Amino acid sequence: MKTYLDCIPCLIRQGLDSARAVTDDPAVHERVLREVCRAAVKMDMRQSAPVMAQHIHRLVRDLSGVVDPYRQIKERFTQLALGVYPYLESCVAEAADAMKTAVQLAIAGNVIDLGVNGSLDDAQVHRAIDRALTVPLRGYLPSFTEAVSGAESILYLADNAGEIVFDRLLIEQVGPAKVTLAVRGAPVINDATADDARAAGLNECVEIIDNGSDAPGTILGDCSDAFRRHFDQADLIIAKGQGNYETLSEVEADIFFVLMAKCPIIARDLGCEVGDFILSGSACAATAGRQDSRARI
Amino acid sequence: MKTYLDCIPCLIRQGLDSARAVTDDPAVHERVLREVCRAAVKMDMRQSAPVMAQHIHRLVRDLSGVVDPYRQIKERFTQLALGVYPYLESCVAEAADAMKTAVQLAIAGNVIDLGVNGSLDDAQVHRAIDRALTVPLRGYLPSFTEAVSGAESILYLADNAGEIVFDRLLIEQVGPAKVTLAVRGAPVINDATADDARAAGLNECVEIIDNGSDAPGTILGDCSDAFRRHFDQADLIIAKGQGNYETLSEVEADIFFVLMAKCPIIARDLGCEVGDFILSGSACAATAGRQDSRARI
Repeated sequence: MKTYLDCIPCLIRQGLDSARAVTDDPAVHERVLREVCRAAVKMDMRQSAPVMAQHIHRLVRDLSGVVDPYRQIKERFTQLALGVYPYLESCVAEAADAMKTAVQLAIAGNVIDLGVNGSLDDAQVHRAIDRALTVPLRGYLPSFTEAVSGAESILYLADNAGEIVFDRLLIEQVGPAKVTLAVRGAPVINDATADDARAAGLNECVEIIDNGSDAPGTILGDCSDAFRRHFDQADLIIAKGQGNYETLSEVEADIFFVLMAKCPIIARDLGCEVGDFILSGSACAATAGRQDSRARI
Repeated sequence: MKTYLDCIPCLIRQGLDSARAVTDDPAVHERVLREVCRAAVKMDMRQSAPVMAQHIHRLVRDLSGVVDPYRQIKERFTQLALGVYPYLESCVAEAADAMKTAVQLAIAGNVIDLGVNGSLDDAQVHRAIDRALTVPLRGYLPSFTEAVSGAESILYLADNAGEIVFDRLLIEQVGPAKVTLAVRGAPVINDATADDARAAGLNECVEIIDNGSDAPGTILGDCSDAFRRHFDQADLIIAKGQGNYETLSEVEADIFFVLMAKCPIIARDLGCEVGDFILSGSACAATAGRQDSRARI
Protein backbone atom coordinates (compact mmCIF):
# COMPACT_ATOMS: atom_id res chain seq x y z
CA MET A 1 0.00 0.00 0.00
CA LYS A 2 1.40 3.39 -0.98
CA THR A 3 1.59 6.31 1.43
CA TYR A 4 -1.51 8.47 1.09
CA LEU A 5 -1.37 12.23 1.64
CA ASP A 6 -3.48 11.76 4.79
CA CYS A 7 -0.71 9.57 6.24
CA ILE A 8 1.71 12.53 6.41
CA PRO A 9 0.11 14.60 9.22
CA CYS A 10 -0.60 11.33 11.02
CA LEU A 11 3.05 10.20 10.77
CA ILE A 12 4.22 13.61 11.99
CA ARG A 13 1.84 13.33 14.96
CA GLN A 14 3.15 9.79 15.65
CA GLY A 15 6.72 11.06 15.59
CA LEU A 16 5.88 13.67 18.23
CA ASP A 17 3.95 11.17 20.37
CA SER A 18 6.80 8.65 20.20
CA ALA A 19 9.41 11.25 21.11
CA ARG A 20 7.31 12.22 24.14
CA ALA A 21 6.81 8.61 25.17
CA VAL A 22 10.57 8.07 25.21
CA THR A 23 11.98 11.24 26.73
CA ASP A 24 10.87 14.32 28.66
CA ASP A 25 13.41 16.49 26.82
CA PRO A 26 11.46 19.10 24.78
CA ALA A 27 14.54 19.74 22.63
CA VAL A 28 14.37 16.12 21.44
CA HIS A 29 10.62 16.43 20.82
CA GLU A 30 11.17 19.49 18.63
CA ARG A 31 14.16 17.98 16.80
CA VAL A 32 12.19 14.81 15.99
CA LEU A 33 9.22 16.83 14.81
CA ARG A 34 11.31 19.01 12.49
CA GLU A 35 13.31 16.07 11.13
CA VAL A 36 10.09 14.17 10.35
CA CYS A 37 8.77 17.24 8.51
CA ARG A 38 12.06 17.46 6.61
CA ALA A 39 11.72 13.79 5.58
CA ALA A 40 8.10 14.38 4.52
CA VAL A 41 9.17 17.14 2.10
CA LYS A 42 10.94 14.65 -0.15
CA MET A 43 9.50 11.26 0.74
CA ASP A 44 8.59 8.86 -2.06
CA MET A 45 4.83 8.42 -1.71
CA ARG A 46 4.95 5.20 -3.71
CA GLN A 47 6.62 3.59 -0.72
CA SER A 48 4.53 2.36 2.20
CA ALA A 49 4.03 4.42 5.36
CA PRO A 50 6.15 2.04 7.49
CA VAL A 51 9.22 3.20 5.49
CA MET A 52 8.67 6.65 6.97
CA ALA A 53 7.79 5.14 10.37
CA GLN A 54 11.09 3.23 10.36
CA HIS A 55 12.91 6.52 9.78
CA ILE A 56 10.93 8.23 12.54
CA HIS A 57 11.62 5.60 15.17
CA ARG A 58 15.32 5.43 14.28
CA LEU A 59 15.39 9.19 14.86
CA VAL A 60 13.62 8.84 18.21
CA ARG A 61 16.04 6.13 19.33
CA ASP A 62 19.12 7.99 18.07
CA LEU A 63 18.17 11.35 19.58
CA SER A 64 17.00 9.91 22.91
CA GLY A 65 19.81 7.35 23.19
CA VAL A 66 17.27 4.68 24.21
CA VAL A 67 17.70 1.47 22.20
CA ASP A 68 14.38 -0.20 23.09
CA PRO A 69 12.09 2.61 24.33
CA TYR A 70 9.01 0.41 24.66
CA ARG A 71 10.72 -2.46 26.52
CA GLN A 72 8.78 -2.04 29.76
CA ILE A 73 5.46 -1.68 27.97
CA LYS A 74 6.23 -4.80 25.95
CA GLU A 75 7.13 -6.75 29.09
CA ARG A 76 3.96 -5.64 30.86
CA PHE A 77 1.73 -6.64 27.94
CA THR A 78 3.52 -10.01 27.64
CA GLN A 79 2.93 -10.78 31.32
CA LEU A 80 -0.68 -9.65 31.09
CA ALA A 81 -1.27 -11.79 28.00
CA LEU A 82 0.36 -14.82 29.61
CA GLY A 83 -1.92 -14.30 32.59
CA VAL A 84 -5.07 -14.55 30.44
CA TYR A 85 -3.73 -17.33 28.21
CA PRO A 86 -5.55 -20.14 30.07
CA TYR A 87 -8.81 -18.20 29.59
CA LEU A 88 -8.04 -17.76 25.86
CA GLU A 89 -7.38 -21.50 25.57
CA SER A 90 -10.73 -22.28 27.20
CA CYS A 91 -12.49 -19.96 24.70
CA VAL A 92 -11.02 -21.92 21.79
CA ALA A 93 -11.69 -25.30 23.47
CA GLU A 94 -15.37 -24.43 23.95
CA ALA A 95 -15.84 -22.74 20.56
CA ALA A 96 -18.21 -24.09 17.89
CA ASP A 97 -15.56 -23.18 15.30
CA ALA A 98 -12.11 -23.33 16.88
CA MET A 99 -10.30 -21.85 13.83
CA LYS A 100 -12.64 -18.86 13.68
CA THR A 101 -12.30 -18.21 17.40
CA ALA A 102 -8.51 -18.50 17.17
CA VAL A 103 -8.46 -15.91 14.35
CA GLN A 104 -10.74 -13.58 16.35
CA LEU A 105 -8.55 -13.90 19.43
CA ALA A 106 -5.39 -13.31 17.40
CA ILE A 107 -7.00 -10.05 16.25
CA ALA A 108 -8.15 -9.31 19.82
CA GLY A 109 -4.48 -9.33 20.83
CA ASN A 110 -3.95 -6.54 18.33
CA VAL A 111 -6.91 -4.57 19.64
CA ILE A 112 -6.05 -4.47 23.34
CA ASP A 113 -4.17 -1.26 23.89
CA LEU A 114 -2.25 -0.98 27.13
CA GLY A 115 -1.54 2.68 26.60
CA VAL A 116 1.55 4.17 28.13
CA ASN A 117 0.79 3.30 31.72
CA GLY A 118 -0.33 -0.27 31.07
CA SER A 119 -2.96 -0.07 33.76
CA LEU A 120 -5.54 -2.55 32.40
CA ASP A 121 -6.53 -5.20 34.91
CA ASP A 122 -7.47 -8.81 34.16
CA ALA A 123 -11.21 -8.11 34.30
CA GLN A 124 -10.90 -5.35 31.68
CA VAL A 125 -8.84 -7.61 29.44
CA HIS A 126 -11.42 -10.43 29.81
CA ARG A 127 -14.15 -8.01 28.78
CA ALA A 128 -12.13 -6.87 25.74
CA ILE A 129 -11.64 -10.52 24.77
CA ASP A 130 -15.34 -11.36 25.14
CA ARG A 131 -16.23 -8.33 23.04
CA ALA A 132 -13.75 -9.35 20.32
CA LEU A 133 -15.51 -12.72 20.05
CA THR A 134 -18.74 -10.97 19.10
CA VAL A 135 -17.21 -8.89 16.25
CA PRO A 136 -18.02 -10.42 12.84
CA LEU A 137 -14.98 -11.68 10.94
CA ARG A 138 -14.85 -10.10 7.47
CA GLY A 139 -13.32 -12.60 5.04
CA TYR A 140 -13.97 -16.11 3.85
CA LEU A 141 -12.77 -18.51 6.52
CA PRO A 142 -13.07 -21.73 4.43
CA SER A 143 -10.51 -20.34 1.94
CA PHE A 144 -8.12 -19.70 4.81
CA THR A 145 -8.70 -23.14 6.36
CA GLU A 146 -8.21 -24.84 3.00
CA ALA A 147 -5.03 -22.87 2.25
CA VAL A 148 -3.67 -23.76 5.69
CA SER A 149 -4.49 -27.46 5.21
CA GLY A 150 -2.83 -27.53 1.82
CA ALA A 151 0.38 -25.79 2.97
CA GLU A 152 3.34 -27.76 4.26
CA SER A 153 5.28 -24.68 5.41
CA ILE A 154 3.71 -21.51 6.80
CA LEU A 155 5.55 -18.30 7.65
CA TYR A 156 3.67 -16.36 10.37
CA LEU A 157 4.67 -12.69 10.43
CA ALA A 158 4.17 -11.39 13.96
CA ASP A 159 3.15 -7.87 14.90
CA ASN A 160 3.43 -6.66 18.50
CA ALA A 161 4.88 -8.02 21.73
CA GLY A 162 2.17 -9.44 23.99
CA GLU A 163 -0.07 -9.85 20.96
CA ILE A 164 2.06 -12.86 19.97
CA VAL A 165 0.73 -14.71 23.03
CA PHE A 166 -2.70 -14.40 21.38
CA ASP A 167 -1.17 -15.47 18.04
CA ARG A 168 -0.12 -18.72 19.69
CA LEU A 169 -3.76 -19.84 19.71
CA LEU A 170 -3.94 -19.46 15.94
CA ILE A 171 -0.58 -21.13 15.47
CA GLU A 172 -1.83 -24.09 17.56
CA GLN A 173 -4.88 -24.41 15.28
CA VAL A 174 -2.82 -24.06 12.11
CA GLY A 175 -0.35 -26.69 13.30
CA PRO A 176 2.85 -25.47 14.97
CA ALA A 177 4.99 -28.12 13.30
CA LYS A 178 4.70 -26.43 9.94
CA VAL A 179 4.89 -22.84 11.21
CA THR A 180 7.91 -20.56 11.40
CA LEU A 181 7.33 -17.37 13.38
CA ALA A 182 9.06 -14.26 12.03
CA VAL A 183 9.61 -11.23 14.25
CA ARG A 184 11.30 -7.84 13.71
CA GLY A 185 15.09 -7.79 13.53
CA ALA A 186 15.45 -4.97 16.08
CA PRO A 187 13.23 -2.99 18.45
CA VAL A 188 10.77 -0.56 16.85
CA ILE A 189 7.79 0.77 18.82
CA ASN A 190 6.19 -2.20 20.63
CA ASP A 191 6.72 -4.63 17.76
CA ALA A 192 7.82 -8.11 18.80
CA THR A 193 11.50 -9.04 18.57
CA ALA A 194 13.04 -12.49 19.16
CA ASP A 195 13.56 -11.59 22.83
CA ASP A 196 9.87 -10.70 23.17
CA ALA A 197 8.82 -13.94 21.45
CA ARG A 198 10.99 -16.01 23.79
CA ALA A 199 9.69 -14.09 26.83
CA ALA A 200 6.20 -15.04 25.65
CA GLY A 201 7.22 -18.71 25.42
CA LEU A 202 6.63 -19.00 21.68
CA ASN A 203 9.96 -20.84 21.34
CA GLU A 204 8.28 -23.78 23.09
CA CYS A 205 6.04 -24.41 20.09
CA VAL A 206 7.58 -22.90 16.92
CA GLU A 207 10.85 -22.00 15.28
CA ILE A 208 11.50 -18.25 15.63
CA ILE A 209 13.41 -16.23 13.05
CA ASP A 210 13.87 -12.50 12.72
CA ASN A 211 13.52 -10.50 9.53
CA GLY A 212 16.71 -8.47 9.97
CA SER A 213 14.86 -5.16 9.75
CA ASP A 214 13.80 -2.47 12.22
CA ALA A 215 10.75 -1.36 10.22
CA PRO A 216 7.28 -1.64 11.82
CA GLY A 217 6.18 -3.89 8.96
CA THR A 218 7.83 -6.20 6.43
CA ILE A 219 9.74 -4.16 3.84
CA LEU A 220 11.18 -7.05 1.84
CA GLY A 221 14.06 -5.01 0.39
CA ASP A 222 15.14 -4.12 3.93
CA CYS A 223 14.96 -7.70 5.26
CA SER A 224 17.84 -10.16 5.54
CA ASP A 225 18.60 -12.70 2.82
CA ALA A 226 17.84 -15.51 5.27
CA PHE A 227 14.38 -14.08 5.92
CA ARG A 228 13.77 -13.54 2.19
CA ARG A 229 14.54 -17.22 1.56
CA HIS A 230 11.96 -18.22 4.18
CA PHE A 231 9.47 -15.81 2.65
CA ASP A 232 10.03 -17.08 -0.90
CA GLN A 233 9.95 -20.77 0.05
CA ALA A 234 6.93 -20.79 2.39
CA ASP A 235 3.77 -22.31 0.90
CA LEU A 236 1.69 -19.72 2.75
CA ILE A 237 2.26 -16.46 4.64
CA ILE A 238 0.04 -15.34 7.52
CA ALA A 239 0.68 -11.61 8.03
CA LYS A 240 -0.54 -10.01 11.23
CA GLY A 241 -1.46 -6.38 11.83
CA GLN A 242 -1.59 -3.14 9.85
CA GLY A 243 2.17 -2.70 9.37
CA ASN A 244 2.48 -6.04 7.61
CA TYR A 245 -0.59 -5.26 5.49
CA GLU A 246 0.76 -1.84 4.47
CA THR A 247 4.11 -3.28 3.41
CA LEU A 248 2.93 -6.51 1.74
CA SER A 249 -0.51 -5.78 0.28
CA GLU A 250 0.95 -5.39 -3.22
CA VAL A 251 3.49 -8.24 -3.03
CA GLU A 252 2.72 -11.24 -5.21
CA ALA A 253 2.70 -14.14 -2.76
CA ASP A 254 0.25 -16.44 -1.03
CA ILE A 255 -0.59 -14.21 1.94
CA PHE A 256 -3.50 -14.02 4.33
CA PHE A 257 -3.72 -10.76 6.25
CA VAL A 258 -5.14 -10.95 9.78
CA LEU A 259 -5.84 -7.58 11.37
CA MET A 260 -8.22 -5.03 12.72
CA ALA A 261 -8.52 -1.99 10.43
CA LYS A 262 -7.59 0.77 12.87
CA CYS A 263 -7.18 3.72 10.51
CA PRO A 264 -9.57 5.12 7.87
CA ILE A 265 -6.96 5.06 5.12
CA ILE A 266 -6.20 1.36 5.56
CA ALA A 267 -9.92 0.62 5.92
CA ARG A 268 -10.55 2.38 2.60
CA ASP A 269 -7.74 0.42 0.96
CA LEU A 270 -9.29 -2.80 2.27
CA GLY A 271 -12.81 -1.73 1.36
CA CYS A 272 -14.06 -2.05 4.94
CA GLU A 273 -14.94 0.12 7.95
CA VAL A 274 -12.64 1.21 10.78
CA GLY A 275 -12.91 -1.39 13.56
CA ASP A 276 -13.62 -4.33 11.24
CA PHE A 277 -11.87 -7.63 11.95
CA ILE A 278 -10.25 -8.75 8.69
CA LEU A 279 -9.11 -12.09 7.34
CA SER A 280 -8.11 -11.09 3.82
CA GLY A 281 -6.41 -13.36 1.31
CA SER A 282 -4.23 -11.86 -1.39
CA ALA A 283 -5.22 -12.83 -4.94
CA CYS A 284 -2.57 -15.57 -4.92
CA ALA A 285 -3.63 -16.95 -1.53
CA ALA A 286 -7.21 -16.89 -2.68
CA THR A 287 -6.26 -18.95 -5.73
CA ALA A 288 -4.51 -21.40 -3.40
CA GLY A 289 -7.77 -21.66 -1.49
CA ARG A 290 -9.67 -21.72 -4.81
CA GLN A 291 -11.83 -18.80 -3.66
CA ASP A 292 -11.44 -15.08 -4.01
CA SER A 293 -11.65 -14.32 -0.34
CA ARG A 294 -10.68 -10.66 -0.80
CA ALA A 295 -13.71 -10.06 -2.99
CA ARG A 296 -15.87 -11.02 -0.06
CA ILE A 297 -14.62 -8.23 2.19
CA MET B 1 0.51 32.72 22.06
CA LYS B 2 3.52 30.87 20.66
CA THR B 3 3.18 27.90 18.32
CA TYR B 4 3.22 24.68 20.31
CA LEU B 5 4.72 21.48 18.90
CA ASP B 6 1.20 19.99 18.78
CA CYS B 7 0.17 22.78 16.39
CA ILE B 8 2.50 21.49 13.66
CA PRO B 9 0.73 18.23 12.68
CA CYS B 10 -2.57 20.11 13.02
CA LEU B 11 -1.43 22.92 10.69
CA ILE B 12 -0.19 20.34 8.16
CA ARG B 13 -3.58 18.61 8.31
CA GLN B 14 -5.31 22.01 7.86
CA GLY B 15 -3.15 22.71 4.82
CA LEU B 16 -4.22 19.44 3.21
CA ASP B 17 -7.89 20.00 4.09
CA SER B 18 -7.81 23.53 2.68
CA ALA B 19 -6.15 22.41 -0.54
CA ARG B 20 -8.84 19.77 -0.97
CA ALA B 21 -11.61 22.25 -0.24
CA VAL B 22 -10.34 24.55 -2.97
CA THR B 23 -9.36 22.20 -5.81
CA ASP B 24 -9.77 18.58 -6.90
CA ASP B 25 -6.25 18.53 -8.34
CA PRO B 26 -4.21 15.96 -6.34
CA ALA B 27 -0.96 17.51 -7.58
CA VAL B 28 -1.91 20.75 -5.81
CA HIS B 29 -2.87 18.80 -2.65
CA GLU B 30 0.55 17.12 -2.59
CA ARG B 31 2.44 20.33 -3.39
CA VAL B 32 0.68 22.23 -0.58
CA LEU B 33 1.34 19.38 1.85
CA ARG B 34 5.05 19.23 1.04
CA GLU B 35 5.47 23.02 1.09
CA VAL B 36 3.80 23.22 4.50
CA CYS B 37 6.16 20.51 5.78
CA ARG B 38 9.09 22.48 4.34
CA ALA B 39 7.93 25.61 6.17
CA ALA B 40 7.53 23.62 9.40
CA VAL B 41 11.17 22.51 9.29
CA LYS B 42 12.41 26.02 9.92
CA MET B 43 9.46 27.89 11.40
CA ASP B 44 10.02 30.18 14.37
CA MET B 45 7.98 28.58 17.15
CA ARG B 46 7.97 31.86 19.09
CA GLN B 47 5.57 33.21 16.49
CA SER B 48 1.88 32.40 16.68
CA ALA B 49 0.27 29.62 14.66
CA PRO B 50 -1.65 32.07 12.41
CA VAL B 51 1.73 33.16 10.95
CA MET B 52 2.07 29.63 9.57
CA ALA B 53 -1.62 29.53 8.64
CA GLN B 54 -1.18 32.76 6.65
CA HIS B 55 1.65 31.10 4.72
CA ILE B 56 -0.45 27.94 4.14
CA HIS B 57 -3.46 29.78 2.78
CA ARG B 58 -1.33 31.98 0.53
CA LEU B 59 0.12 28.75 -0.88
CA VAL B 60 -3.35 27.28 -1.39
CA ARG B 61 -4.52 30.42 -3.19
CA ASP B 62 -1.36 30.71 -5.30
CA LEU B 63 -1.27 27.06 -6.35
CA SER B 64 -5.00 26.78 -7.02
CA GLY B 65 -5.31 30.22 -8.66
CA VAL B 66 -8.45 30.90 -6.61
CA VAL B 67 -8.33 34.31 -4.91
CA ASP B 68 -11.22 33.80 -2.45
CA PRO B 69 -11.72 30.03 -2.19
CA TYR B 70 -14.34 30.21 0.56
CA ARG B 71 -16.47 32.92 -1.08
CA GLN B 72 -19.53 30.75 -1.63
CA ILE B 73 -19.37 29.28 1.87
CA LYS B 74 -19.07 32.79 3.30
CA GLU B 75 -22.05 34.00 1.28
CA ARG B 76 -24.16 31.04 2.37
CA PHE B 77 -23.35 31.57 6.04
CA THR B 78 -24.05 35.31 5.73
CA GLN B 79 -27.49 34.63 4.23
CA LEU B 80 -28.24 31.98 6.83
CA ALA B 81 -27.19 34.31 9.67
CA LEU B 82 -29.26 37.17 8.29
CA GLY B 83 -32.22 34.78 8.14
CA VAL B 84 -32.01 34.02 11.87
CA TYR B 85 -31.13 37.57 12.91
CA PRO B 86 -34.70 38.48 13.95
CA TYR B 87 -34.72 35.39 16.20
CA LEU B 88 -31.36 36.43 17.68
CA GLU B 89 -32.73 39.92 18.37
CA SER B 90 -35.73 38.44 20.16
CA CYS B 91 -33.39 36.32 22.34
CA VAL B 92 -31.56 39.47 23.47
CA ALA B 93 -34.79 41.47 23.91
CA GLU B 94 -36.24 38.78 26.19
CA ALA B 95 -33.02 38.06 28.10
CA ALA B 96 -32.66 38.72 31.83
CA ASP B 97 -29.12 39.99 31.10
CA ALA B 98 -28.96 41.41 27.59
CA MET B 99 -25.16 41.91 27.59
CA LYS B 100 -24.53 38.31 28.68
CA THR B 101 -26.90 36.95 26.04
CA ALA B 102 -25.30 39.13 23.37
CA VAL B 103 -21.85 37.78 24.30
CA GLN B 104 -23.15 34.19 24.24
CA LEU B 105 -24.76 34.73 20.84
CA ALA B 106 -21.61 36.34 19.46
CA ILE B 107 -19.78 33.18 20.50
CA ALA B 108 -22.59 31.03 19.08
CA GLY B 109 -21.86 32.58 15.68
CA ASN B 110 -18.34 31.24 16.00
CA VAL B 111 -19.58 27.78 16.98
CA ILE B 112 -21.98 27.13 14.10
CA ASP B 113 -19.99 25.27 11.51
CA LEU B 114 -21.52 25.12 8.07
CA GLY B 115 -18.97 22.63 6.86
CA VAL B 116 -18.11 22.52 3.20
CA ASN B 117 -21.60 21.84 1.89
CA GLY B 118 -23.35 24.39 4.09
CA SER B 119 -26.38 22.17 4.47
CA LEU B 120 -27.63 23.34 7.88
CA ASP B 121 -31.29 24.33 7.85
CA ASP B 122 -32.92 27.05 9.96
CA ALA B 123 -34.24 24.57 12.55
CA GLN B 124 -30.73 23.18 13.13
CA VAL B 125 -29.33 26.69 13.49
CA HIS B 126 -32.08 27.61 15.97
CA ARG B 127 -31.24 24.53 18.03
CA ALA B 128 -27.52 25.43 17.97
CA ILE B 129 -28.40 28.96 19.13
CA ASP B 130 -30.64 27.70 21.95
CA ARG B 131 -27.90 25.30 23.08
CA ALA B 132 -25.33 28.13 23.04
CA LEU B 133 -27.52 30.10 25.44
CA THR B 134 -27.25 27.30 28.02
CA VAL B 135 -23.42 27.12 27.97
CA PRO B 136 -21.93 28.91 31.00
CA LEU B 137 -19.85 31.96 30.15
CA ARG B 138 -16.37 31.67 31.65
CA GLY B 139 -15.13 35.11 32.58
CA TYR B 140 -16.22 38.02 34.72
CA LEU B 141 -18.95 39.85 32.89
CA PRO B 142 -19.07 42.93 35.22
CA SER B 143 -15.42 43.72 34.34
CA PHE B 144 -16.32 43.64 30.67
CA THR B 145 -19.44 45.77 31.14
CA GLU B 146 -17.50 48.31 33.20
CA ALA B 147 -14.65 48.48 30.68
CA VAL B 148 -17.15 48.97 27.85
CA SER B 149 -18.95 51.75 29.76
CA GLY B 150 -15.70 53.53 30.49
CA ALA B 151 -14.40 53.39 26.92
CA GLU B 152 -15.11 56.12 24.40
CA SER B 153 -13.67 54.25 21.43
CA ILE B 154 -13.81 50.49 20.95
CA LEU B 155 -12.12 48.53 18.18
CA TYR B 156 -14.00 45.28 17.51
CA LEU B 157 -11.81 42.70 15.72
CA ALA B 158 -14.06 40.43 13.68
CA ASP B 159 -13.45 36.79 12.97
CA ASN B 160 -15.48 34.94 10.31
CA ALA B 161 -18.01 35.92 7.67
CA GLY B 162 -21.57 35.14 8.78
CA GLU B 163 -20.38 35.20 12.38
CA ILE B 164 -20.25 39.01 12.14
CA VAL B 165 -24.04 39.04 11.85
CA PHE B 166 -24.06 37.53 15.36
CA ASP B 167 -21.41 40.05 16.43
CA ARG B 168 -23.84 42.83 15.53
CA LEU B 169 -25.93 41.92 18.61
CA LEU B 170 -22.95 42.54 20.86
CA ILE B 171 -22.02 45.72 19.00
CA GLU B 172 -25.60 46.97 19.53
CA GLN B 173 -25.26 46.32 23.28
CA VAL B 174 -21.82 47.92 23.51
CA GLY B 175 -23.04 50.99 21.60
CA PRO B 176 -22.37 51.15 17.84
CA ALA B 177 -21.53 54.85 17.91
CA LYS B 178 -18.23 54.19 19.67
CA VAL B 179 -17.34 50.98 17.81
CA THR B 180 -15.11 50.55 14.78
CA LEU B 181 -15.28 47.10 13.21
CA ALA B 182 -11.98 45.76 11.85
CA VAL B 183 -11.93 42.94 9.31
CA ARG B 184 -9.13 41.12 7.44
CA GLY B 185 -7.42 43.00 4.65
CA ALA B 186 -7.81 40.18 2.13
CA PRO B 187 -9.54 36.79 1.89
CA VAL B 188 -8.14 34.01 4.07
CA ILE B 189 -10.23 30.90 4.81
CA ASN B 190 -13.74 32.06 5.76
CA ASP B 191 -12.54 35.11 7.70
CA ALA B 192 -14.59 38.25 7.17
CA THR B 193 -13.36 40.91 4.75
CA ALA B 194 -14.89 44.36 4.15
CA ASP B 195 -17.03 42.88 1.35
CA ASP B 196 -18.38 40.24 3.74
CA ALA B 197 -19.10 42.84 6.41
CA ARG B 198 -21.01 44.98 3.93
CA ALA B 199 -22.92 41.96 2.61
CA ALA B 200 -23.94 41.33 6.23
CA GLY B 201 -25.16 44.92 6.56
CA LEU B 202 -22.70 45.88 9.29
CA ASN B 203 -21.97 49.13 7.43
CA GLU B 204 -25.46 50.26 8.47
CA CYS B 205 -24.41 50.50 12.12
CA VAL B 206 -20.62 50.84 12.42
CA GLU B 207 -17.56 52.16 10.65
CA ILE B 208 -15.70 49.29 8.96
CA ILE B 209 -11.94 49.27 8.47
CA ASP B 210 -9.64 46.49 7.30
CA ASN B 211 -6.37 45.53 8.92
CA GLY B 212 -4.36 45.30 5.70
CA SER B 213 -3.30 41.72 6.35
CA ASP B 214 -4.31 38.30 4.98
CA ALA B 215 -3.49 36.43 8.20
CA PRO B 216 -6.29 34.52 9.98
CA GLY B 217 -5.67 36.58 13.10
CA THR B 218 -4.20 39.99 13.95
CA ILE B 219 -0.44 39.94 13.46
CA LEU B 220 0.26 43.57 14.32
CA GLY B 221 3.56 43.69 12.43
CA ASP B 222 1.76 42.56 9.30
CA CYS B 223 -1.09 45.06 9.59
CA SER B 224 -1.35 48.45 7.89
CA ASP B 225 -0.20 51.66 9.59
CA ALA B 226 -3.80 52.94 9.48
CA PHE B 227 -5.04 49.89 11.35
CA ARG B 228 -2.17 50.16 13.85
CA ARG B 229 -3.18 53.73 14.63
CA HIS B 230 -6.76 52.59 15.33
CA PHE B 231 -5.43 49.75 17.47
CA ASP B 232 -3.13 52.02 19.48
CA GLN B 233 -5.70 54.76 19.95
CA ALA B 234 -8.74 52.66 20.91
CA ASP B 235 -9.68 52.74 24.58
CA LEU B 236 -10.67 49.08 24.40
CA ILE B 237 -10.27 46.17 21.99
CA ILE B 238 -12.82 43.37 21.68
CA ALA B 239 -11.12 40.48 19.88
CA LYS B 240 -13.25 37.69 18.52
CA GLY B 241 -12.27 34.07 17.89
CA GLN B 242 -9.23 31.88 18.30
CA GLY B 243 -7.08 33.48 15.60
CA ASN B 244 -7.27 36.89 17.28
CA TYR B 245 -6.53 35.27 20.66
CA GLU B 246 -3.51 33.41 19.32
CA THR B 247 -2.03 36.54 17.77
CA LEU B 248 -2.84 39.07 20.50
CA SER B 249 -2.78 37.15 23.80
CA GLU B 250 0.68 38.50 24.65
CA VAL B 251 0.17 42.03 23.37
CA GLU B 252 0.03 44.73 26.04
CA ALA B 253 -3.27 46.44 25.39
CA ASP B 254 -6.77 46.65 26.86
CA ILE B 255 -8.27 43.63 25.14
CA PHE B 256 -11.21 41.38 25.90
CA PHE B 257 -11.15 38.06 24.06
CA VAL B 258 -14.52 36.58 23.14
CA LEU B 259 -14.36 33.02 21.82
CA MET B 260 -15.11 29.38 22.18
CA ALA B 261 -11.98 27.32 22.95
CA LYS B 262 -12.09 24.85 20.07
CA CYS B 263 -8.66 23.26 20.34
CA PRO B 264 -6.96 21.63 23.33
CA ILE B 265 -3.79 23.71 23.00
CA ILE B 266 -5.65 27.02 23.14
CA ALA B 267 -7.84 25.67 25.96
CA ARG B 268 -4.68 24.80 27.93
CA ASP B 269 -3.25 28.26 27.28
CA LEU B 270 -6.49 29.81 28.55
CA GLY B 271 -6.72 27.41 31.50
CA CYS B 272 -10.12 26.09 30.42
CA GLU B 273 -11.71 23.07 28.74
CA VAL B 274 -12.36 22.54 25.03
CA GLY B 275 -15.88 23.80 24.26
CA ASP B 276 -15.87 26.49 26.96
CA PHE B 277 -17.31 29.92 26.10
CA ILE B 278 -14.73 32.50 27.08
CA LEU B 279 -14.87 36.20 27.90
CA SER B 280 -11.28 36.81 28.95
CA GLY B 281 -9.77 40.17 29.72
CA SER B 282 -6.06 40.74 29.24
CA ALA B 283 -4.25 42.00 32.34
CA CYS B 284 -4.55 45.59 31.05
CA ALA B 285 -8.24 45.30 30.23
CA ALA B 286 -8.84 43.73 33.63
CA THR B 287 -7.15 46.69 35.29
CA ALA B 288 -9.39 48.99 33.27
CA GLY B 289 -12.32 47.05 34.71
CA ARG B 290 -10.61 46.99 38.14
CA GLN B 291 -10.94 43.26 38.29
CA ASP B 292 -8.63 40.46 37.15
CA SER B 293 -11.15 38.72 34.97
CA ARG B 294 -8.59 36.35 33.49
CA ALA B 295 -7.84 34.91 36.92
CA ARG B 296 -11.48 33.84 37.12
CA ILE B 297 -11.27 31.55 34.09
